[in-house]
Amino acid sequence: MSDAASETVASVVRELVDANHILFDQGVVDGFGHVSARHPERPDRFLLARSMAPALVTEKDVLEFDFDGNPVEAGAPAGYLERFIHGEIYRKRQDVMSVVHSHSPSVVPFSVVTGTKLRPVCHMCGFRSEKGTPIFEIRDFAGPGSDLLITSGKLGAALADTLSDGPAVLMRGHGSTVVGSTLRQAVFRAVYTEVGARLQMEAMRLGPVTYLTEGETVGTTKTISTQYDRSWFLWLKAARNSPMSQ
Amino acid sequence: MSDAASETVASVVRELVDANHILFDQGVVDGFGHVSARHPERPDRFLLARSMAPALVTEKDVLEFDFDGNPVEAGAPAGYLERFIHGEIYRKRQDVMSVVHSHSPSVVPFSVVTGTKLRPVCHMCGFRSEKGTPIFEIRDFAGPGSDLLITSGKLGAALADTLSDGPAVLMRGHGSTVVGSTLRQAVFRAVYTEVGARLQMEAMRLGPVTYLTEGETVGTTKTISTQYDRSWFLWLKAARNSPMSQ
Amino acid sequence: MSDAASETVASVVRELVDANHILFDQGVVDGFGHVSARHPERPDRFLLARSMAPALVTEKDVLEFDFDGNPVEAGAPAGYLERFIHGEIYRKRQDVMSVVHSHSPSVVPFSVVTGTKLRPVCHMCGFRSEKGTPIFEIRDFAGPGSDLLITSGKLGAALADTLSDGPAVLMRGHGSTVVGSTLRQAVFRAVYTEVGARLQMEAMRLGPVTYLTEGETVGTTKTISTQYDRSWFLWLKAARNSPMSQ
Amino acid sequence: MSDAASETVASVVRELVDANHILFDQGVVDGFGHVSARHPERPDRFLLARSMAPALVTEKDVLEFDFDGNPVEAGAPAGYLERFIHGEIYRKRQDVMSVVHSHSPSVVPFSVVTGTKLRPVCHMCGFRSEKGTPIFEIRDFAGPGSDLLITSGKLGAALADTLSDGPAVLMRGHGSTVVGSTLRQAVFRAVYTEVGARLQMEAMRLGPVTYLTEGETVGTTKTISTQYDRSWFLWLKAARNSPMSQ
Repeated sequence: MSDAASETVASVVRELVDANHILFDQGVVDGFGHVSARHPERPDRFLLARSMAPALVTEKDVLEFDFDGNPVEAGAPAGYLERFIHGEIYRKRQDVMSVVHSHSPSVVPFSVVTGTKLRPVCHMCGFRSEKGTPIFEIRDFAGPGSDLLITSGKLGAALADTLSDGPAVLMRGHGSTVVGSTLRQAVFRAVYTEVGARLQMEAMRLGPVTYLTEGETVGTTKTISTQYDRSWFLWLKAARNSPMSQ
Repeated sequence: MSDAASETVASVVRELVDANHILFDQGVVDGFGHVSARHPERPDRFLLARSMAPALVTEKDVLEFDFDGNPVEAGAPAGYLERFIHGEIYRKRQDVMSVVHSHSPSVVPFSVVTGTKLRPVCHMCGFRSEKGTPIFEIRDFAGPGSDLLITSGKLGAALADTLSDGPAVLMRGHGSTVVGSTLRQAVFRAVYTEVGARLQMEAMRLGPVTYLTEGETVGTTKTISTQYDRSWFLWLKAARNSPMSQ
Repeated sequence: MSDAASETVASVVRELVDANHILFDQGVVDGFGHVSARHPERPDRFLLARSMAPALVTEKDVLEFDFDGNPVEAGAPAGYLERFIHGEIYRKRQDVMSVVHSHSPSVVPFSVVTGTKLRPVCHMCGFRSEKGTPIFEIRDFAGPGSDLLITSGKLGAALADTLSDGPAVLMRGHGSTVVGSTLRQAVFRAVYTEVGARLQMEAMRLGPVTYLTEGETVGTTKTISTQYDRSWFLWLKAARNSPMSQ
Repeated sequence: MSDAASETVASVVRELVDANHILFDQGVVDGFGHVSARHPERPDRFLLARSMAPALVTEKDVLEFDFDGNPVEAGAPAGYLERFIHGEIYRKRQDVMSVVHSHSPSVVPFSVVTGTKLRPVCHMCGFRSEKGTPIFEIRDFAGPGSDLLITSGKLGAALADTLSDGPAVLMRGHGSTVVGSTLRQAVFRAVYTEVGARLQMEAMRLGPVTYLTEGETVGTTKTISTQYDRSWFLWLKAARNSPMSQ
């Protein structure tokens, strides 16, 4: 690997560490959940921390995996049980450069109810389809007595199928997975999926809700996609100034 | 410009920076939202930060704009996409000296429901009309496929029309804009619009709500208008002592 | 005044300052709200801060008032507009040694709804009557266009009448007032009135609620009344360690 | 006692102190609530702090009790009024090595409603039975006018009977008690009982809820039981870095 290449990898690793800390500080992940980035030099691999709490991840904790979820380096420490979420989505979606999996608290309720879909109520959430975010029902693939987790390539592929070409998928009784064409986009979408779920909940309790039209989801997504860095650097400062980082 | 005039401008700029930090610390703005002040020497201009997260604004980030949203200084950095909110309100409302635009989380739900209006439930919110705060439906002006943002003078003028002579206007699927005859009043109103929306939500879930009468909105506004500084200096200390300011 | 007496007063003043900071740190007061103590040497007077945000009160801000709300010291700074709440309750209730007035956020909603009463749902709130906390409707005394505030002895006396011999009274569209036979009891009751209102709200949304019986309010009050110091010293440490105190 | 034995006890005491601080920092306990561990050398005894706020507990505050709630050491400071919760559960349940009693805020509402049970909605809560967590109604044992507290061995034994062989029991109008086969498991379950109660509340407000099947509770419990340390060390850092620990 050339010096330039290794510098690029180092840069992605540093940003991935920041993403871990941001997602914790913004309340998207707690002890669980994970964020990955596609390898910048080897598009058939991805970078993901070893199995640990995101808030505590450092650069040396980031591992390289192939799409089957195998660590590239011999003797690597244990990876997340659900690393197959990442591998199978990168395999299926060449446009995806980053994946966030979380149990963010306002999103989980939408994963367990029937008759109510997670839909975009405001411009910050326009990246999600006005038709509603799909729900992955693991019972359809793992039967009625699973541990609900994506612990194999087969389940990861099924999840990727439900995600289809969208930005997000809910996982029944579990959480959600959000993707982006950049790391910062994926983090932005993960945060605003949580924010938007909370807004929708509150709005539904007030009365019938006016959701975004299809045209509005297109319009808002185009404009908001120019604004990720504004949130990124704010959230980065918040994470670094948090008592957890002292 | 005389020394006295430039000192006055400097003073407003300093207070505007404080307002940015307060609105973030009180949860009214996140990475988005903005606050402006009418220029103290040139009532046909206003002061507003360049496009950035409010929590990070410093004095050197504050720019001067004309009502068409053009920066006065050549080569100024990019302004907020929605600076037209400010220009058109200052143009229409000579009594307004400050404008706050935000996506504050308890207010957005009221912007997307029909049949339920944001109304004053307690004395701290008496500045809002007992008839309910108007909602700006951008579809009426930008069609069914816009990005929901106020990105032109035409849309800013339409928003100012819906605001009319009131203190606040909701923006469907987007947020709200609150105005004041002083910067501290606008900040106070923005915080208590959020607080009051939360109180109304909770009350509505308990049973039929007794709102303020028109007379009570007049009475409370008169008394509370003498109390802004009490909150201002509390919030300023909170913002300055926050880990975000370290 | 003897040295011993002035030492007693100094001690009450110090504890009153702590109470101000605790009530802010626990979310009972924001920029508004106030807490007083009956004067330990002059039972016809009470101690209350000058008009300012509770979080910022220091010993030198504490003033002495008579029951008509007049400061004892000539040239004293302005007192709270609603100091009559305190004077009239101390006048009517000889058992009361401390009064807390607040707009605590989970309590205000109960003040504006009909058909739902604030009632004790758990042992920590057993000090409130199982029949429900009374609501003071200021329209009955100040007409339909007041500023909702207790700005005269007449209104303070009417509020004291509605409080009657109970521990708490709600004030429609405004907040609540809680009393105690000690300063620590009043602070404890103010915090757990907020906590209990939140619990009741949540419970009511789940289904029909089992409230405490009259016997249980008696039983819990007797036991819990031995436990105030445990919370007091915890809350004091939390307030002192808060960034606001740095 | 051998040196090795006393070292083991010291180690459990240190971890018990950490557990106290974690439960406060995670919002499970406030000034009230307590956590114990079975004595590692004397299975007929347990370790529990003296009566004080959990956040302030240090190693020297931890006492040794027999199952009747008597302190082993003569002249020990006062224990918690409800230490009988711990003694009677340890007596009845030889598999239990740690007990957490709390009034965690999202759980109390489930204790006072009829017709709605606390049930597992997601994989992190799969340790609770899909049939719903039992509720201990103290009126059945102490009559209609008690203080709701478990202040005797008789009441503790009745609570242990309602807990039966499960992981958790709700206490009407009071709180809950959660047990574990290790201290870290009990703490984990206490935190995720609170988290899961909040998720269930929110989900129920959105529509009919899909709960975990019995098979899923078995599956998730098996997998998640390998993950306690990940949360433990995160929470420990959060508690130690909190302003409360400075």
